[in-house]
Amino acid sequence: MNILDIIAKKRDNKELTKEEIEYFVEGYTKGEVTDYQASALVMAIYINGMNDQEITDLTLAMAHSGEVLDLSDLGDVVDKHSTGGVGDKITLILMPIIASLGVPVAKMSGRGLGFTGGTVDKMQSIPGYRTDLTIDEFKQNVKNIGICLMGQTANLAPADKKLYALRDTIACVENIPLIASSIMSKKIAAGANKIVIDVTCGSGAFMKNKEDADKLASIMTRIGELSNRQVVCVQTNMDEPIGHAVGNELEIFEVVDILKGRYLQEDIKHIICELGANMLMLANKANSIEEGKQKILENISNGQAYDKFIQLVSNQGGDASYIEHMEKFEKAKYIVPITAHKSGRITRLDALQVGRLAAYLGAGREKKEDDINPRVGFWFERKVNDEVNEGEILGYIHADDEEKANYVLSQNIFEIN
Amino acid sequence: MNILDIIAKKRDNKELTKEEIEYFVEGYTKGEVTDYQASALVMAIYINGMNDQEITDLTLAMAHSGEVLDLSDLGDVVDKHSTGGVGDKITLILMPIIASLGVPVAKMSGRGLGFTGGTVDKMQSIPGYRTDLTIDEFKQNVKNIGICLMGQTANLAPADKKLYALRDTIACVENIPLIASSIMSKKIAAGANKIVIDVTCGSGAFMKNKEDADKLASIMTRIGELSNRQVVCVQTNMDEPIGHAVGNELEIFEVVDILKGRYLQEDIKHIICELGANMLMLANKANSIEEGKQKILENISNGQAYDKFIQLVSNQGGDASYIEHMEKFEKAKYIVPITAHKSGRITRLDALQVGRLAAYLGAGREKKEDDINPRVGFWFERKVNDEVNEGEILGYIHADDEEKANYVLSQNIFEIN
Repeated sequence: MNILDIIAKKRDNKELTKEEIEYFVEGYTKGEVTDYQASALVMAIYINGMNDQEITDLTLAMAHSGEVLDLSDLGDVVDKHSTGGVGDKITLILMPIIASLGVPVAKMSGRGLGFTGGTVDKMQSIPGYRTDLTIDEFKQNVKNIGICLMGQTANLAPADKKLYALRDTIACVENIPLIASSIMSKKIAAGANKIVIDVTCGSGAFMKNKEDADKLASIMTRIGELSNRQVVCVQTNMDEPIGHAVGNELEIFEVVDILKGRYLQEDIKHIICELGANMLMLANKANSIEEGKQKILENISNGQAYDKFIQLVSNQGGDASYIEHMEKFEKAKYIVPITAHKSGRITRLDALQVGRLAAYLGAGREKKEDDINPRVGFWFERKVNDEVNEGEILGYIHADDEEKANYVLSQNIFEIN
Repeated sequence: MNILDIIAKKRDNKELTKEEIEYFVEGYTKGEVTDYQASALVMAIYINGMNDQEITDLTLAMAHSGEVLDLSDLGDVVDKHSTGGVGDKITLILMPIIASLGVPVAKMSGRGLGFTGGTVDKMQSIPGYRTDLTIDEFKQNVKNIGICLMGQTANLAPADKKLYALRDTIACVENIPLIASSIMSKKIAAGANKIVIDVTCGSGAFMKNKEDADKLASIMTRIGELSNRQVVCVQTNMDEPIGHAVGNELEIFEVVDILKGRYLQEDIKHIICELGANMLMLANKANSIEEGKQKILENISNGQAYDKFIQLVSNQGGDASYIEHMEKFEKAKYIVPITAHKSGRITRLDALQVGRLAAYLGAGREKKEDDINPRVGFWFERKVNDEVNEGEILGYIHADDEEKANYVLSQNIFEIN
């Protein structure tokens, strides 16, 4: 086998065999296939496409390019993934709920990059919380308390990491087969056999329209079928940020408020019920989606989800007194209200714009190496479709830099008509 | 401007502007655009194609990526190029003829790679002949004796060199727009404003069929129109080797025999008349193709072309006594006759196979750095369509290694039916 023949085949719009795809992925991981050869092949894949079998073969080859976790001794682990969003704290709300219902939660999460925040960054706002566990600690935690939530420290799917970085430099990011296999390879390497995927769609997501989201969902479901994994995709809207908060510590506040049963906004309720019910079904803890949804809401009301969250935080070294007494968290220096410039209905609060501005305030990172500021971000009191009066407070900018706060304020993120 | 936007545009099958193409070529030459980015763009060009204007812009950008020779003070210089062949000694026959008819000949030639031989390698078979002149010497020679034939030493079209090497490693060689712009960029950088191109077609050429040869000829003619250069393409057959000889020194023997008027095989006569007459027309030294052909044959018969060849050799330090007394050349150790295994008509003498076997004998190089053996190759007495008798000698293998000679003999390169 020869990389030139493989490139030429896809260049000529022919189907690659499993062996050819494995040859490429292994060779690229080892450095025997060069970046420029991978680049030519990726561009040919981008333009000419791949069929479901090729995408599945690529996914499995990438999944097996490094360590593959075996979580089979933990029981019916169900993984959850989101294709990204702004203010997306769903994992932090949902996982304790699911764990409190007896589903083992063994979840590795990434750090944020660009305009989407990372679950790991959010958890690290809690003083002491450790995200860098060994795989043994990870599994032991799940055995002990039924939940562990850590950063992705293992050498999972290195071929995907390399290809993802390459795609970013050759204008080949926005390709649905490549996105699908990238997501699925990481999930499979992380040991998941049952996966619920939140396919986000809208301005603040990778998929900007329903058609693309449908396609991505359908390919990932198909990869699941062809690779013998149970995959359920749930589509959710990402035109406006999720919930009240955008920003690491601010999102923890919101998570705690929700788990304490203080409020549950409609958008978040919808997402956690849809995703959660499917997870319970996959774990054989609910007989129907309706029953699943009911159990989820129940375990919020009865405090069991909150207790599980406290247990998770303590078990990983976090100072749970911060959760019990959130006033202990250090706040941002400037908390600047955003007011309605006129009366009317909010017609737009663009997730992408909010995500970018949050990153600008310091909540996200441009490059992997960048530090983030846990305190900064947004807290929204009002959302799209709300009727508001001129002068009413719509939300707050949390900033450590006055100039940045003023710049963000000047951007008129709420559109009122 | 941004290389990612340029790659994305061609990825999406859109037309690139002159400025975008120049940005890419300049950036790639300087190393600011990486190999993997160039690779992605080249693959997108390969699959999605380019229109005539884009191909011309690419050609001119590559031509101007390095030195561009100015030969305007030499008069009506007409360049000649061949897209490659086996036993292609046409330049060495035609250029002295043209020079003897008063057309200034200022020609830079490449070294051979793969199965096609290089004009420079052939000239270097003549003891003392210098091919590494300065540009000043090059031009002075043309002024003094009307002809100079040297290697390509100047930094001509470095972007093309870099892209050509890249294409070789990413399965993007056989692409007509890229081949056309590669050829034309080198010609334009070499100072040519009037160019006759021999578009070879057949097993021993890059273009294997008439359709591709037509397309290549048409694109190069169009690049000429759009870049204000006079370009004439002549298509010739390359299914069997040209003339009697394949191999560097052996081809010099044939060139000298022809220029001395000893014989002129039909295939060679056809090519030099077609190309030469067009060159004379472009140089305003003939009023019609017919007149041009007549002048060419005349200057062979009257010895003026031969005298010009001797003058060329001497002027560049070559020992012309070798040309006058060809027995002085050292011959290969083994000269093995190839005989007809049966009586009948020769139906095939495959140029590609012959070229590869000649390279195997040592006449060509696999890698740029390889040395070549000037003595080895083939001398054919018979060609396709000749009627032959069993046992008759069809040609000779010239080899320095007996085993290699025997291997080549075993290949039955003549097909008789």
